[in-house]
Amino acid sequence: MRLSRYFLPTLKEAPSDAQIVSHKLMLRAGLIRQEAAGIYAWLPLGLRVLRKIEQIVREEQVRAGAVELLMPTLQLADLWRESGRYDAYGPEMLRITDRHERELLYGPTNEEMITDIFRGYVKSYKSLPLNLFHIQWKFRDERRPRFGVMRGREFLMKDAYSFDIDEAAARKSYNRMFVAYLNTFARMGLKAVPMRADTGPIGGDLSHEFIVLADTGESEVFCDRKLVEMPAPGGDVDWNDLQSIVDERTALYAATEEMHDAARFERETAEGDRLSARGIEVGHIFYFGTKYSAPMKARVAGPDGKDTDVHMGSYGVGVSRLLGAIIEAGHDEAGIIWPDAVAPFDVVVINLRSSDAACSAACEDAVARLEAAGKDVLYDDTDERPGGKFATADLIGVPWQLTIGPKGLADGVVELKRRATGEKVSIPLDQAMTRLTA
Amino acid sequence: MRLSRYFLPTLKEAPSDAQIVSHKLMLRAGLIRQEAAGIYAWLPLGLRVLRKIEQIVREEQVRAGAVELLMPTLQLADLWRESGRYDAYGPEMLRITDRHERELLYGPTNEEMITDIFRGYVKSYKSLPLNLFHIQWKFRDERRPRFGVMRGREFLMKDAYSFDIDEAAARKSYNRMFVAYLNTFARMGLKAVPMRADTGPIGGDLSHEFIVLADTGESEVFCDRKLVEMPAPGGDVDWNDLQSIVDERTALYAATEEMHDAARFERETAEGDRLSARGIEVGHIFYFGTKYSAPMKARVAGPDGKDTDVHMGSYGVGVSRLLGAIIEAGHDEAGIIWPDAVAPFDVVVINLRSSDAACSAACEDAVARLEAAGKDVLYDDTDERPGGKFATADLIGVPWQLTIGPKGLADGVVELKRRATGEKVSIPLDQAMTRLTA
Repeated sequence: MRLSRYFLPTLKEAPSDAQIVSHKLMLRAGLIRQEAAGIYAWLPLGLRVLRKIEQIVREEQVRAGAVELLMPTLQLADLWRESGRYDAYGPEMLRITDRHERELLYGPTNEEMITDIFRGYVKSYKSLPLNLFHIQWKFRDERRPRFGVMRGREFLMKDAYSFDIDEAAARKSYNRMFVAYLNTFARMGLKAVPMRADTGPIGGDLSHEFIVLADTGESEVFCDRKLVEMPAPGGDVDWNDLQSIVDERTALYAATEEMHDAARFERETAEGDRLSARGIEVGHIFYFGTKYSAPMKARVAGPDGKDTDVHMGSYGVGVSRLLGAIIEAGHDEAGIIWPDAVAPFDVVVINLRSSDAACSAACEDAVARLEAAGKDVLYDDTDERPGGKFATADLIGVPWQLTIGPKGLADGVVELKRRATGEKVSIPLDQAMTRLTA
Repeated sequence: MRLSRYFLPTLKEAPSDAQIVSHKLMLRAGLIRQEAAGIYAWLPLGLRVLRKIEQIVREEQVRAGAVELLMPTLQLADLWRESGRYDAYGPEMLRITDRHERELLYGPTNEEMITDIFRGYVKSYKSLPLNLFHIQWKFRDERRPRFGVMRGREFLMKDAYSFDIDEAAARKSYNRMFVAYLNTFARMGLKAVPMRADTGPIGGDLSHEFIVLADTGESEVFCDRKLVEMPAPGGDVDWNDLQSIVDERTALYAATEEMHDAARFERETAEGDRLSARGIEVGHIFYFGTKYSAPMKARVAGPDGKDTDVHMGSYGVGVSRLLGAIIEAGHDEAGIIWPDAVAPFDVVVINLRSSDAACSAACEDAVARLEAAGKDVLYDDTDERPGGKFATADLIGVPWQLTIGPKGLADGVVELKRRATGEKVSIPLDQAMTRLTA
């Protein structure tokens, strides 16, 4: 992508109402633009990151056996009356009346709708286990939206819903999502720690939050350091028996502020391993039994022929929020430092003198070779001065910067910089190509 | 994908309120489920097709130089007051009040928001031409939603917006979208004819609708048969000079009912070429000059240093509606006939006896080989009887059916069926693999 034909509106200064670093950097780097309180447009660079995050989430859901569908943003109020949540949900639910005076709402979550879809089609235990997920825009009318996409009102969420014949089977589904989440966040370069969580208004008796540790986190968390250091299990596991993987982690102390028990923390954790830090919630999984299936009559015939309420769980990932969390966990004075897997581009090729035909030809050749190798390349072909180009490249946080100028070309070298470490090397172009495409 | 682990709820009968064939088939084949009047959930099979259509639309937009971003579904009413459309739009606009009594609306289109984004960042003619597009859910509160996704309320639309320094440049942008649309619809296996259109409430003086011809089309259209037969120009064109490609087509008579002039039709079209047919609108492009930029003060400094209102166009494709149009144009008594490029799966492998270990092993081997070749495969591993499997395969319209049974295997053959033609051949598995992966 040629920067001169792209739309990358960076800002020198973030608006003063942006309080946290990720919000400031997302505005400055031209990732988002505020359209109303807590409602953002995703500018081209931000959208690229959002889609990469979304795709990682999707792939790990599918690997864990979940099937993707897509529910609409608007829902009928009557559906929420069946579960009793229409009145219980409070002012965070955006309620809407259409031209025929029918009551709708902008979905803040989808337990009711997915339960309705399930009961409409599934009649036998033979169709279980079933886990259906979607990645769709949600709306929660936060009283005080802030922190950019970290606490927005219109936000992108992945929500999965599992259906099982009994609690034992439901726990297997829960474990699959537990492991999928460990892998999902690890692929994004994040350390996300599962913590026992309060089940809150959604109900149920088994729940974990996945918390990214970052100094600017919204809440305090407490955990055993060993949990942070434990690597993700990866995809090559026995998906039918994950209990030991889950147990290994849940055996270690980890709790959010609401669930924290200082005495237990001291008792169960060695002194050197007691970690108290700030955290950002990026995922939340629940097992809630028959909370929705019972009132909504989502039943299947069991092996004995008798109808039984299905056992359900729900599993959320804050897809748009993850951009904020990733930036909170990875940035420096100069700007964002994207992990490779979610970076909007893999490489930015910086042309130090776009008025120079030989220099531009060398750049275009490099871009073509990188693209042929399947890399996403941003080509800064503008006539801005070098200092400005470097500042933009650092700000937007692309993992590799390949700088090509007439002087280097005369000496047979280009400059390759790794954004995360700042390490720079002057090497022949071919050598840079080998490094970037290896 | 194993059918036994998928979610493909087909129906024997379509609900009686489904009037047209595409709506009936989308419900029967388990593509969509109605959640409210004109609001649908996309079941897994339907979502696969939707995403393939969306991706073709995206690729052709990018090829024509448009840059993707993503605007939110909800917008501030005040933005629409600037253009004067908040009051003009009428009851099709879904108006919403949030908890702080701020007026929002669910975007039916995005001229105002994109103009606001543009004016927020772009200050010089040097940044032009610029074409920004997004693919996002929209809402229009149709008085009488019907025909499934053809006239839904919540629908997926691609809308692009071009910004140029003057009318001559804007016409070049218009031409780029004109050609992009010809290529887009051709890639989906559709004959979409550009027709001069009324500019309607959106305003402006140059507009074409792209109409798919289908017996069940919503309106009558009139055109020169040569226009239908003309192939799409393809991507290998001079994107900076498309006037001759556009002229070649606009020189031929083509008009929707509202724009039809019977006398001109007779005068300009040879008798054997006069085609009158039913049509479905799948795209609409407009040039509307400074209609939004003037009231909203979207100005750039020109080469002379003076500020000038930018010239704009907008370009819509009904992404979700296209599923209906494609089915209207391609189906038979047994079900849907998907064009290869948008089919939810490339091949369905039908296991005639899943209780037979050798037969299942042969099926699994075939599936693995097809997937290794990059094919999307649905594997019917269920224990349904053969007749039911064939009926489902025909109903969901996957282009190729590969049937493997114990009897054929004993004879060293499998059956390969092309859904569109019904042609069946009994050939060795290796030969079938060669045909399917060539």
